[in-house]
Amino acid sequence: MQSRQIYFCRRPDGKPAPDVFEERLVDVAAPRDGEILCRNVTVSVDPYLRLKMYDRRSYTPPLRIGEAIPGRAVALVLESRAPGLAPGDHVVIPGGWQQYALVRGEAARRIDLSVASPGAWLGPLGMTGMTAYAGLMHIGRPEAGETLVVTGAAGAVGGIAGQIGRLLGCRVVGIAGSEEKCRAIVEQFGFDAGLNYREPDLAARLGAACPDGIDIHFDNVGGEISRTVASAFNDFGRLVVCGLISQYSGQQHADPAALDEFMRLVLTRRLTVQGFIVSDLERKFPEFEDRMANWLQTGQIVHREHARSGFGEIVPAFLGMLSGENIGKSIVHLAD
Amino acid sequence: MQSRQIYFCRRPDGKPAPDVFEERLVDVAAPRDGEILCRNVTVSVDPYLRLKMYDRRSYTPPLRIGEAIPGRAVALVLESRAPGLAPGDHVVIPGGWQQYALVRGEAARRIDLSVASPGAWLGPLGMTGMTAYAGLMHIGRPEAGETLVVTGAAGAVGGIAGQIGRLLGCRVVGIAGSEEKCRAIVEQFGFDAGLNYREPDLAARLGAACPDGIDIHFDNVGGEISRTVASAFNDFGRLVVCGLISQYSGQQHADPAALDEFMRLVLTRRLTVQGFIVSDLERKFPEFEDRMANWLQTGQIVHREHARSGFGEIVPAFLGMLSGENIGKSIVHLAD
Repeated sequence: MQSRQIYFCRRPDGKPAPDVFEERLVDVAAPRDGEILCRNVTVSVDPYLRLKMYDRRSYTPPLRIGEAIPGRAVALVLESRAPGLAPGDHVVIPGGWQQYALVRGEAARRIDLSVASPGAWLGPLGMTGMTAYAGLMHIGRPEAGETLVVTGAAGAVGGIAGQIGRLLGCRVVGIAGSEEKCRAIVEQFGFDAGLNYREPDLAARLGAACPDGIDIHFDNVGGEISRTVASAFNDFGRLVVCGLISQYSGQQHADPAALDEFMRLVLTRRLTVQGFIVSDLERKFPEFEDRMANWLQTGQIVHREHARSGFGEIVPAFLGMLSGENIGKSIVHLAD
Repeated sequence: MQSRQIYFCRRPDGKPAPDVFEERLVDVAAPRDGEILCRNVTVSVDPYLRLKMYDRRSYTPPLRIGEAIPGRAVALVLESRAPGLAPGDHVVIPGGWQQYALVRGEAARRIDLSVASPGAWLGPLGMTGMTAYAGLMHIGRPEAGETLVVTGAAGAVGGIAGQIGRLLGCRVVGIAGSEEKCRAIVEQFGFDAGLNYREPDLAARLGAACPDGIDIHFDNVGGEISRTVASAFNDFGRLVVCGLISQYSGQQHADPAALDEFMRLVLTRRLTVQGFIVSDLERKFPEFEDRMANWLQTGQIVHREHARSGFGEIVPAFLGMLSGENIGKSIVHLAD
């Protein structure tokens, strides 16, 4: 059997283009002891992949040229030589951008698609939701009545982070890149306000939307927008550094004094700034899945996905996400 | 009775000059109920005062033009209408830059000059020592075997922070601005290495001095030096933002990408960056004074001071400290 597979063939300079990727046909081996052979049903495309394309130290090793693109997927077990998994089971696996995946049984998590859709298992109930929850709880430490600002608010993680903040009693203000996104985060996700950063005077609008200042910034974006948010921090504010998507495409600051000003805010307002990746924190929050499942089932948290269909749509979905095309979790359906 | 008093008469732009200050002669009132009248014996000059000269939000209100300069002092009680304090007692008070001070009894702390000198009461046993201890313990959280870098290492706070780190089992590397300072921190304070940032190739020398990377940076300096340190952080490194003396005199970054690069390090290495002032934290460390007194008495921590004498030396001592003239705590003796 053969599998279509997308691999990394060229390091992008700034914003990636389709020629960063190529497709090849690879032979799929039969599972050995402890392995399962799966067909990927739904593939996740995630911003962290952009970070892996730099040839420099990061939280995971850089992608090598020629390496298959990794990523989470919901998959169907076709053959199993692993205990507790049988053909016909649905699983979440590190399936990558390919049609078929051979993985160790321990790397697979059995899921029930009658409880939630593939997109929800990759989104709020998956790494995306855990990222939002763990970053907010561990670093943001929200208290009822505080003001939480979320950048990248219509994105997969941001939309969930803001909804969790609202459930915990925060005033939640989202910043996003279109009127449509701002409407969605207010009307569907229940944010208290949505601000379009492409309109002028973000600082003034942010001040008006946060009359008591800002206590927590859950940041997916970095760059100038984050700098604007930082200047409105209250004393003892917390900056959750979850992502820096403005950087991933080579956008840069223009002001040499920006770092000095930022550090002055950190000192004088006694801010806490902390970066994390979900794998650092997930063991600290064993309650996550039950809590999130309950929030989803009771409609207190809304899952929204931006879905495409077909193997050829994986790369466009990834590039589109980096350009901000999505509201909610970006996924690509490959098969039923 | 009259008192010479230094007040704030002009906001500096960048590095302060003597004309920021003027002297006046003020009448000293008799103490009312609950107050003590003191003669300042030894006055502390501290870098935080520079921050108070900006007309902008900071951790304490900005100095107003015409306001008397505040500051800690060791003083002799001349008259007391406060319980528990009598003429002849020595106290630490918010005495300011003046000859005589009238303060509330609750603001005074009786000290024993046979236990430690005025400079030590203002230094390691005072706000300076508490700043070093609380910042290091609360934010730095040193573990034996970790590497601690201290900038402003020959300064009042830096010299103590590094010595505490050494006692807690860290490898301690100091960065300072002269060969003499680097010798002092190694030979007198017991740092493992001292690096002169005025010599070329700081990054390479820092790498050589920290073969296992950097876990904690106790930062008094900010700016380019701190940026060099940040690039050598290990995963989960902690940046204790105690001071930014490079900024206080208008030095600035030249690189617009500096903030973006810094935030990339925060994210990918999962750094924690936190600012503080001592008053936020002092109640968390009730053991401080006993512990520090023991370290001083047993010679495990060395107190060094940079002392001048005479009222007219207060302003030169402050300006000299901002220029880095001192090794250890800067004080000015006014009287016996």
